[in-house]
Amino acid sequence: MFQALVSPPRSEGTTDDLDRRRFVESAAVTEGQSLSTKAFWEWFDLRRAAVQMDVRLIPLAGLRQWGFQPGTGNLVHESGRFFSVEGLRTRLGGAEPRGWDQPIIHQPEIGFLGILVKEIDGVLHCLMQAKAEPGNAKGLQLSPTVQATRSNYTGVHRGSAVRYLEYFSGPKQGRVLVDVLQSEHGSWFYRKRNRNMVVEVTDDVPQHEDYCWLTLGQVRRLLQEEDLVNMDTRTVLACIPLDEAADVIDVGDDPFRAGLAASLSPQAPSAHTLPELLRWYTAIKTGTELSTERIPLDAISGWATEPDGIRHDSGRDFSVVAVSVEAGNREVRRWTQPLLRTCAEGVIAFLARRIGSVVHVLVRAGVEPGCRDAVELGPTVQFLPGSDGSPLTAERPPFLDEVLAATPEQIRYDVTQSEEGGRFYRVLSRYMVVEIEHDVSLPDGYRWMTVGQLGTLLQHSHYINIQARSLIACLQSVW
Amino acid sequence: MFQALVSPPRSEGTTDDLDRRRFVESAAVTEGQSLSTKAFWEWFDLRRAAVQMDVRLIPLAGLRQWGFQPGTGNLVHESGRFFSVEGLRTRLGGAEPRGWDQPIIHQPEIGFLGILVKEIDGVLHCLMQAKAEPGNAKGLQLSPTVQATRSNYTGVHRGSAVRYLEYFSGPKQGRVLVDVLQSEHGSWFYRKRNRNMVVEVTDDVPQHEDYCWLTLGQVRRLLQEEDLVNMDTRTVLACIPLDEAADVIDVGDDPFRAGLAASLSPQAPSAHTLPELLRWYTAIKTGTELSTERIPLDAISGWATEPDGIRHDSGRDFSVVAVSVEAGNREVRRWTQPLLRTCAEGVIAFLARRIGSVVHVLVRAGVEPGCRDAVELGPTVQFLPGSDGSPLTAERPPFLDEVLAATPEQIRYDVTQSEEGGRFYRVLSRYMVVEIEHDVSLPDGYRWMTVGQLGTLLQHSHYINIQARSLIACLQSVW
Repeated sequence: MFQALVSPPRSEGTTDDLDRRRFVESAAVTEGQSLSTKAFWEWFDLRRAAVQMDVRLIPLAGLRQWGFQPGTGNLVHESGRFFSVEGLRTRLGGAEPRGWDQPIIHQPEIGFLGILVKEIDGVLHCLMQAKAEPGNAKGLQLSPTVQATRSNYTGVHRGSAVRYLEYFSGPKQGRVLVDVLQSEHGSWFYRKRNRNMVVEVTDDVPQHEDYCWLTLGQVRRLLQEEDLVNMDTRTVLACIPLDEAADVIDVGDDPFRAGLAASLSPQAPSAHTLPELLRWYTAIKTGTELSTERIPLDAISGWATEPDGIRHDSGRDFSVVAVSVEAGNREVRRWTQPLLRTCAEGVIAFLARRIGSVVHVLVRAGVEPGCRDAVELGPTVQFLPGSDGSPLTAERPPFLDEVLAATPEQIRYDVTQSEEGGRFYRVLSRYMVVEIEHDVSLPDGYRWMTVGQLGTLLQHSHYINIQARSLIACLQSVW
Repeated sequence: MFQALVSPPRSEGTTDDLDRRRFVESAAVTEGQSLSTKAFWEWFDLRRAAVQMDVRLIPLAGLRQWGFQPGTGNLVHESGRFFSVEGLRTRLGGAEPRGWDQPIIHQPEIGFLGILVKEIDGVLHCLMQAKAEPGNAKGLQLSPTVQATRSNYTGVHRGSAVRYLEYFSGPKQGRVLVDVLQSEHGSWFYRKRNRNMVVEVTDDVPQHEDYCWLTLGQVRRLLQEEDLVNMDTRTVLACIPLDEAADVIDVGDDPFRAGLAASLSPQAPSAHTLPELLRWYTAIKTGTELSTERIPLDAISGWATEPDGIRHDSGRDFSVVAVSVEAGNREVRRWTQPLLRTCAEGVIAFLARRIGSVVHVLVRAGVEPGCRDAVELGPTVQFLPGSDGSPLTAERPPFLDEVLAATPEQIRYDVTQSEEGGRFYRVLSRYMVVEIEHDVSLPDGYRWMTVGQLGTLLQHSHYINIQARSLIACLQSVW
């Protein structure tokens, strides 16, 4: 229990530091000991051929086991579980008070998002899953080992137990390397969060055909593929603490990549100290006057329920639609469910800049009504219809034009990725990292931070929003 | 803006590190440059003679400008501001589900608790206020420079502007050294929190007769006095980051005091690393199934409204009472208000133990229904009627008997302190630090932590509850 006391002080070499190092070393290995990248694609194509999922948009009236609850109009499952679509009324005070109503997904549970890791030939490998979700644009994605809501793992699906869950919870639990509660989309979920976990095992693990072992470097390289690594994988990857990587990763003679590797360390020199950033964040939270009230879905104003979906009167933003699903090859399962759909592809972008020799990204403190504490830190640009929390604004956010006008030399990452296919119907965004060399004048609510500082905050809940976490994972693939 | 980049890495000498050092140095000075301790008492006795406050318990029916709102029975102010007393229904799931109703104070505002500091002859001094509150047992207490709810500083009191507030907010703001949102009593307040601030000024500050400049060492020494340093001061003191103090503070040849000074540093060797503790905390939060619902005060069961207060049918726990107040000498102000009253003195205690040579305190992760996230870290023993969140349990908590049976040699701190006199009527607790030399077996939900680890968590919101923060301030006076 008190083993750490005989070790040197924490900053020089505890278990946590060793683990940071092992994660970085795994991130430097882009050809797996378990599965070459070529073999990965063969396996993934096989899975793609084997897994059938037929998804069709249907009228709301075609939903089975789901229905509008009498009295509230909330869209609920007959079991009372999974999730429901309810109404949310938001009021923002301050100099220009405004308010709006909207549908919001309510799911008062903590789900598991877990990646199982294991050393193979001395390198950490992640057990990744080929998984289909109804909202996926391209069928299969690469998911964490476990991706389970409480409804999943307590068996409401009447399905089989969640595979590998026993390694994350209960007596078979492995060594926990990451375990932190993080939020989901605060514009679309009411206070939803998941337990982001990484657990290490040393014993043999039975390997099901839908799963494969990849190094962190392989997974990160796959983040260069369009819409392959799913959102749940990205958020867990972002929560993995990393050490400075300049000595392990091949950064070539690119000062940006060298500055990015240096930026990983929580000790990297930074424009602002972490306490300074926290004080700035406190002041912003204190100045934010947000009040939200859950209301019946049929009491929201500005939205209409039409045969094929619940949509905003402006036609913009998002809508609630219904799908029917047929999944499986041997044993076919059929179900219907609501999903949330956006009207256009979004843009999720970091401006990045070397300050000294260390890459900083520009972070924005933004209000999202479904957040537990109103404000979280997001990417520089988060332009997803409705995603600024207000279906009433269509303004172009700061820096969007700068991001879209970037030259090829400035663009360090530019790949379309999707949000969670279990709740969102083909919600795609262009995830971008754009390098700038000049200083820019910052509106209120923006700060330059190192990746290591974001990593420190990611050890705590509810600082960094899901879009920023996703993009941090993408950013780490820029080697 | 990017000044830090030309400095050595943060861990060796940034502004924040220098400030930690300056705080420790101020804590080592127990005779003030501005005011000797003897002069302090002369000033305080003068203030006590000058400040008149006559407080009487009255029947609920005697409340003026306060009343029971038709339809809900909530106890509210006619302005709709300040605070209200409403109902809360709590359900705790798990192996032994249970639930209860209770009155709860609702005050959806962020208040300011701010201490202004200034160097006098090279040593930081704090501007402390002699302040009377209706619930105080002994009249005057030592308060922070500013202690203001939004209702105060937006003028609902029709009183004068809040003195010195301009240094904490707005264009005259000084250099911010501490700025963090922290919770209040989760058993009695619904999601209440305050902005804990320390701000440094270098210019001359006009000094009002109710205020005096004291070193941190003087304030800490005054924590040895019964019911003098108020709760608001204690929580701000706890949020001040400190460095290892063994070289500055005279610890004599007492290994406990030396171990306490060493424990202040976030880098002190510790039984568990901070990431380990955070993972443990996440697992506890995930396992906690708490649901709360605000309900009308007249819908709570198990409580009765009697002429002189709202009390639990068992007669235990707390009650809601009313007082009339007459304050002032020249210009007399009169008002009535509700206050919360407990039935007996509580016990708030840390078990403390040297592990290696570093003092650790035993922390308990406890559920409080009014917390924003259900669970915060509290002291080893928090035995205040009703304070475990359940008026239905009267069990003696773990370690209470051990604390109360401590020998004089074991008792490192034992002083009666009060909770906030603006909301609580003479709510007193015995604050204790009890040293043990042997290991103890820990029930679920307990962990040994260093003071430096608690200090690191206190840079973030909602980890450490108000009782633990109060006791951390007291603990730091044990030199």
